[in-house]
Amino acid sequence: MGTVYEKTVTSPVNIAVIKYWGKRDTNLILPTNSSLSVTLSQDHLQSKTTIRASPDFEKTRLWLNGVEDTAIEKNKRLQNCLSETRRLRKEYEERLRKDKNVDNVIPLSEYNLHICSENNFPTAAGLASSASGFACLAYTLSQIYELPISTTELSKIARQGSGSACRSLFGGFVAWEMGFQDDGSDSQAVQIASQDHWPELEALICVVSDTKKDTSSTEGMQNTVNTSTLLRHRIEHVVPLRMKSMIKAIHERDFQKFAEITMQDSNQFHALCLDTYPPIFYLNDVSRAIIRVITEYNSSNPERKLKAAYTFDAGPNAVIYTTSENVPEIINLIAKYFPGNENTRDYFSDPFQLFVGKTIGEQPLPLGFNDQIIPVFPKGNVKQILHTKVGDGPKVVAGEFDGLLNKQGWPKKLK
Amino acid sequence: MGTVYEKTVTSPVNIAVIKYWGKRDTNLILPTNSSLSVTLSQDHLQSKTTIRASPDFEKTRLWLNGVEDTAIEKNKRLQNCLSETRRLRKEYEERLRKDKNVDNVIPLSEYNLHICSENNFPTAAGLASSASGFACLAYTLSQIYELPISTTELSKIARQGSGSACRSLFGGFVAWEMGFQDDGSDSQAVQIASQDHWPELEALICVVSDTKKDTSSTEGMQNTVNTSTLLRHRIEHVVPLRMKSMIKAIHERDFQKFAEITMQDSNQFHALCLDTYPPIFYLNDVSRAIIRVITEYNSSNPERKLKAAYTFDAGPNAVIYTTSENVPEIINLIAKYFPGNENTRDYFSDPFQLFVGKTIGEQPLPLGFNDQIIPVFPKGNVKQILHTKVGDGPKVVAGEFDGLLNKQGWPKKLK
Repeated sequence: MGTVYEKTVTSPVNIAVIKYWGKRDTNLILPTNSSLSVTLSQDHLQSKTTIRASPDFEKTRLWLNGVEDTAIEKNKRLQNCLSETRRLRKEYEERLRKDKNVDNVIPLSEYNLHICSENNFPTAAGLASSASGFACLAYTLSQIYELPISTTELSKIARQGSGSACRSLFGGFVAWEMGFQDDGSDSQAVQIASQDHWPELEALICVVSDTKKDTSSTEGMQNTVNTSTLLRHRIEHVVPLRMKSMIKAIHERDFQKFAEITMQDSNQFHALCLDTYPPIFYLNDVSRAIIRVITEYNSSNPERKLKAAYTFDAGPNAVIYTTSENVPEIINLIAKYFPGNENTRDYFSDPFQLFVGKTIGEQPLPLGFNDQIIPVFPKGNVKQILHTKVGDGPKVVAGEFDGLLNKQGWPKKLK
Repeated sequence: MGTVYEKTVTSPVNIAVIKYWGKRDTNLILPTNSSLSVTLSQDHLQSKTTIRASPDFEKTRLWLNGVEDTAIEKNKRLQNCLSETRRLRKEYEERLRKDKNVDNVIPLSEYNLHICSENNFPTAAGLASSASGFACLAYTLSQIYELPISTTELSKIARQGSGSACRSLFGGFVAWEMGFQDDGSDSQAVQIASQDHWPELEALICVVSDTKKDTSSTEGMQNTVNTSTLLRHRIEHVVPLRMKSMIKAIHERDFQKFAEITMQDSNQFHALCLDTYPPIFYLNDVSRAIIRVITEYNSSNPERKLKAAYTFDAGPNAVIYTTSENVPEIINLIAKYFPGNENTRDYFSDPFQLFVGKTIGEQPLPLGFNDQIIPVFPKGNVKQILHTKVGDGPKVVAGEFDGLLNKQGWPKKLK
């Protein structure tokens, strides 16, 4: 066996503050409106992907969280990412050979691949893993193929795997510009501000228990495009203004404006789900109770300032953005009204050591907070609180032991 | 004591199929869009009002469900209705005296009134009583004052008590034309079709248990007007088309179209509540589960026809419109998934004797219905199912014993 062509990359999750909902092209994944997200730290949530290219592999194979996907030929989105990067690699190889007269170009574009990917967060948590997963795939491919393209160029490929994946290619604050071309050549991600830009901004993810199967976002958003009589107005008149205001708020680290737009846009996204026919519901009674708690927290504080902003994707989990000084108060509030089951450690792991020697949920409520606003929910309605912050984009993992494939190029772990 | 000037009137509830949400004038109660409703039978739901005018009364007084409202001077909406009808009575008296040379005109416009009103449905049911109540007040005043005006003219006065009250002045199918004048002179109710027009149409009201206090519709709708970025589009572009289509559907007794618009408009109303900032929630998990049941019922039946339409006002209660032949199936479905507490009679009284010798909730499900669509809810989440149909407008009650005031003009029943 000769040189091993293998790369391992980790990629972050992103949570939108201006939501993507609706495609104008379902094959190229071109959205009906621009969107904007915050990339979350990989210390707590990440996808990891190892890809090896080898002339010895019989075919290209994919393992996801320890299980082989045996029907990757039918996975059009995956194939789009593979064929696009392979095409670029092939062009690059030819350019090296012809223009630069390089003799020993490795024909990686002709090799089959072993792709192994996993998330460090449980799928059961209902956190969208397709964004971090496809960002990881595209970035790893660009690394192994040594593609001479910018991250924004690469984002157009990741986008074809999963729309919001394009935003996970950058750390910090990221806009997905919807673009206007039919071929998608201007529908891309750009970084608005780096991960260090606003160090006080933090995020709490409240994992909400839910029995029902959600409508998939892929299916749901096209139902909205086809049946909502309000979506067009959002696309044409609401989002363009909100994008501008949000970018300004981020540049100025203006949490008041950031919080207001974040909550309004989450509300509007779920409003459009409701305006779909038949309606789509992602928020449940627990989600709505969390909104009430945050609304009361924002309206009752003596400074009369927005101190937290909720946002919900296509599921009942809440993500709460806030600034460092408010984090303990909010965690305590959530833990009071939505206590966890017995295993406290699984419920809240306190990565930043904010509650050493203190019991969450039993600390005093914030001054002015009306504790009658909602009843205390039965245990386990919120399964977990994750405390995290703004993070960086995809990273190449150096060590051989961190890869997901063994020496022979097969998954180390299988389920 | 001389002649007694007293009238007793009963008035119906109406449930909108195109929703009223938002005022362009909060004093005159002028809406931002037209709306359309179905008047429900008074056999099951009604308000009753007795008014007596007498020179012996020291002041005008009001009793509501057996409790005196001792601050009626501050009740602007009530005062608007009283002063408007009194003004018309005064004009009428003057016309009689001058133009027609009538000598013995009774100066009722100068007398104080005793007004006694009650609903035959429990307030706890959370069914809007202000529409039937104010329709009843306005109609009783017009009767006692013998006002020479049309019902549509009268609707402009009832409207100033409670917007949707104007629609309760007619039986059958009723449009509230929003009007465009600043003085409200063209914001009025008109009958689209009489109660006999569509005898197959029936209604089921599912009274949903809810712990939290709803945002009042008066407050809520103005928050939507002030903060929703989607409402204007609904007002200008959606409702005008829906009004036309709905009137056509009613005239043609086209249940497919009627059901489709009814559900879409209920969805959109609640979508706008969600697009309000902070958001307003009226639907809870039980409401949403009822929507799922009806959606499955409509999509799974072999004929692929809409057989039922849900609609929700400013609360979690569902009103289901359907045609006679489907009623037993739907009642059985609701009772299966949302069983009542022990007292079956309170849960469903079977006014049309559809389940004689049968147990509701235990009959076979409709052909093709996927019974896994939602779990069976714990007992008591739906407190009551009311089965009713289209009904007529306000009626004068003839008998003295049916009035709410005793011979001396005081309430027979007090709490």
